[in-house]
Amino acid sequence: MRKVGIAGGGITKFTKSDISIESLMVSAVKPVFDSIPDLSQGDIDAVLTSTNANNKYLANIVSELSGISPKIAHSVESLCNSGTNCIVSAYAYISSGLADTALIIGSEKADSPGLVLEWDKSRGQYKHPIYWSSMFTSAHMRKFGTTLEDLAYVGAKNHRNALDNPYALFENAYSIEDIMQSKHLTENVRLLDCSMPCNGSAAILLASEDHIKKICDQPVWITGIGQKAISAGFTRNEDLSSMKSTIISAADAYKMSKKTHNDIDVAELHDAFSICEIIELEDLGLTRKGEGGSYVRRLHETDDRKINPRGGLIGSGHPLGATGIAQTIEIFQQLQGKAEKRQVDGAKTGLVHNMSAAATSSTVLILEQ
Amino acid sequence: MRKVGIAGGGITKFTKSDISIESLMVSAVKPVFDSIPDLSQGDIDAVLTSTNANNKYLANIVSELSGISPKIAHSVESLCNSGTNCIVSAYAYISSGLADTALIIGSEKADSPGLVLEWDKSRGQYKHPIYWSSMFTSAHMRKFGTTLEDLAYVGAKNHRNALDNPYALFENAYSIEDIMQSKHLTENVRLLDCSMPCNGSAAILLASEDHIKKICDQPVWITGIGQKAISAGFTRNEDLSSMKSTIISAADAYKMSKKTHNDIDVAELHDAFSICEIIELEDLGLTRKGEGGSYVRRLHETDDRKINPRGGLIGSGHPLGATGIAQTIEIFQQLQGKAEKRQVDGAKTGLVHNMSAAATSSTVLILEQ
Repeated sequence: MRKVGIAGGGITKFTKSDISIESLMVSAVKPVFDSIPDLSQGDIDAVLTSTNANNKYLANIVSELSGISPKIAHSVESLCNSGTNCIVSAYAYISSGLADTALIIGSEKADSPGLVLEWDKSRGQYKHPIYWSSMFTSAHMRKFGTTLEDLAYVGAKNHRNALDNPYALFENAYSIEDIMQSKHLTENVRLLDCSMPCNGSAAILLASEDHIKKICDQPVWITGIGQKAISAGFTRNEDLSSMKSTIISAADAYKMSKKTHNDIDVAELHDAFSICEIIELEDLGLTRKGEGGSYVRRLHETDDRKINPRGGLIGSGHPLGATGIAQTIEIFQQLQGKAEKRQVDGAKTGLVHNMSAAATSSTVLILEQ
Repeated sequence: MRKVGIAGGGITKFTKSDISIESLMVSAVKPVFDSIPDLSQGDIDAVLTSTNANNKYLANIVSELSGISPKIAHSVESLCNSGTNCIVSAYAYISSGLADTALIIGSEKADSPGLVLEWDKSRGQYKHPIYWSSMFTSAHMRKFGTTLEDLAYVGAKNHRNALDNPYALFENAYSIEDIMQSKHLTENVRLLDCSMPCNGSAAILLASEDHIKKICDQPVWITGIGQKAISAGFTRNEDLSSMKSTIISAADAYKMSKKTHNDIDVAELHDAFSICEIIELEDLGLTRKGEGGSYVRRLHETDDRKINPRGGLIGSGHPLGATGIAQTIEIFQQLQGKAEKRQVDGAKTGLVHNMSAAATSSTVLILEQ
C-alpha cells in the first residue's frame, strides 16, 4: 500500500445565497491551486465530485471548467457521508497506483434532494431527520440522564467556535439560554440543536508520497480508514443511544493507524444534531459511554477547541456533499499548525467522523503529521 | 498492487417494462450469489452502485435489501461510462487492500435523466446524442469514404449476435435492407443505427487473488485499465473521425497489461450508434484507421463473433449505468468459455470499451484468463 497524503484544500463561504452547483465547485478548486503554487492542471490524475445534486457528469464538467483532463472522473453519492466516501475512494486510487494525485470536490445547495431519504417508508410521515435525532435524544436521555441543557452546550460551543471560521454560515454566538429558548421542533429537538442545509463547497488534493514531496512542504497523512454501512433504513438501529456504524468504523480506523482514542488531539465530528456529537464522542472512545454531555460542558467552559474547532455542522452549516471534505480540510489545517484562531496547540493526530442517515453508515479517518 | 479478478456476474433481461431501480438492482444481485455457492453476504466488503437515476443512498438500500452490511457503499455516476468507472473504483479498493471483495451493481431505467447532457449548452437545440453521432458519421464518411451501407452492417451484425443473448432487448434479426430503409433521424443516422435506452441491470463480483481462490475455480483477471476524461462538452473534440479519449485509454490499458491489439481475442465495444463501433475498432487498434467499415462487413459475412458477441448496445439495449458492467460480464463469460452460443473459440484475452457523451470520456479494460 502506497502512503497517501493531503497536499492542500479550498473552501467557499457557506451561505444561503443561491449559486449553481458548477460555480460552487469551481470556486473551491481555485484556492486549492492558489495554495499549491507548484501544482498544475496537468498533474491531476483523478477528479471526483461529491454531491447529492441531480446534475449529471459533474466531475467532467468541473474538470473542463478548471482546465483539467484527468484519467478518472466521476461523481460519488452516499447522502451526508458522500464527502469522506469520495476521499476514501481517492485514497484507494492513489494507494493502488492507478493515480498519483486526486482532486476531490464536494458541493451542495441548500435545497439538496439528499435532505430527506424518501425511500425509507419505515419512517412513515416522520422522514425528516429531526425525527430520528429526536428518537436518539430520547434514548440517550432515558439511559444516561442527558438533559436538554447538555444538548444546549453542544450548540453554544460549536456556534462560538464558528465565530473563528471565516467560511461558516453562522456569524453569531448563541448562549445556553438562547438555545434553551429556541423553537421546539419536537419535544427534545430545538431549532438551534440542528445543523442547517446551505450552499457550500470544499475541495481537497490527495497525492502519493512520491508526488506530494514535489508540491507540499507539510503534507498530512491519512493513516487510518474505517467505514461501515449497517443499512439504509432507520429500523435496523438496535440501540438508539449509540451508533453501531461509528463504533465499527472507529475500531477499524484506529487499528489501521495503530492509534487509539488517547492519541487524538483534535477531531471533527458529524454533529448533524446536538445529540449526535454527544453520542459520537462516546462511540469514538473520546469519553466514556454516557459521559458525552458532561464532556461537552467541560470543553465549553474551558474554551477547549479539541472537538469541532471550525464550529461543526451546527456552527458552519451543512452542505451535504461538501461536509466530509470541509471536516477533513479543518483537520489538515490543524495538523499543519495553520488553523489560525481555531488552532489546537501541538495537534499531531486528528480524527474525522462523517455519517449518513441516522448513522446507518459512517466513515472515520485518522490523519497524522 | 494486489491482483484483482472477477468471480461472478448476474444480468437481468433488458426490457421496456417499467420496474423500480431498487428492484432492478436486487434482480441482478441474486444471480451473482446463485453462481457463487461459496459466497455469503458477510463476505462483501464494498457495494458500489452505478446509475444515472436520481435516487439517493442506493448502494445502502440495495445492500439492505440483499442482506449485506458492507464497509464501503456509495453510488457512482459518469453518464454512460458509469459502469466501468464503478469497476475501476472497486479494483482500486481491492488492489489497495481496503477491501477483499466488491459487489458492483449497475441499473438504469429507460427514462433515465442521463440520456441527454442538459449542461452542454454548446450544442444548442442539438443536445440529443443523435446529433453528435451524426457529426461523427459525416466526418468519418468525408475522410474515409465510409458509407451508409457500412453503417448498416454494424446494426445487422449486432442484432444477429443479440439473437443468442437471452438478456437482449431486441429479439429480431434485421437485414441490411431493413436498416437501410429504417427511418432517418438525421441525414445519416437511422433508427436502426441507434442503441435504445431500456430498463436493465447487471452486477459483478470482484475479489482479491487470495479471496477469489476460495470462491471461484475460473477467475478472470483485470490486467489492464485505461481511463481518460477529455472534457464534458462536445466542442473540445478536435477530430470527429476519431475518439481521443479512447485512443489514450487504450494505450494505457495495453501498457498496463503488457498486451497489444494483436492479443485481443474478443471485445465489447460501446456502439451507442453504428458509427461508434467503426471508429472504436480503429482507435483501439483492432483494425487500421479508415478500415472500420470493411472490417465490420467481414465480421458479418463470416459470422465472426469477436466484436460485440452479446449484440453490443445496439442489439442488447442500453441501460446506461448497467452497460459497462454487462459488457464486462460478457467478456468474463467468454474467457471462462461459458458464453454458450456466443462463444468465441479459444478466447484468452478480452477487451471492454465503455464511454460517455460523444466519447468525451472513455474506459478500456483488458481481461485475461
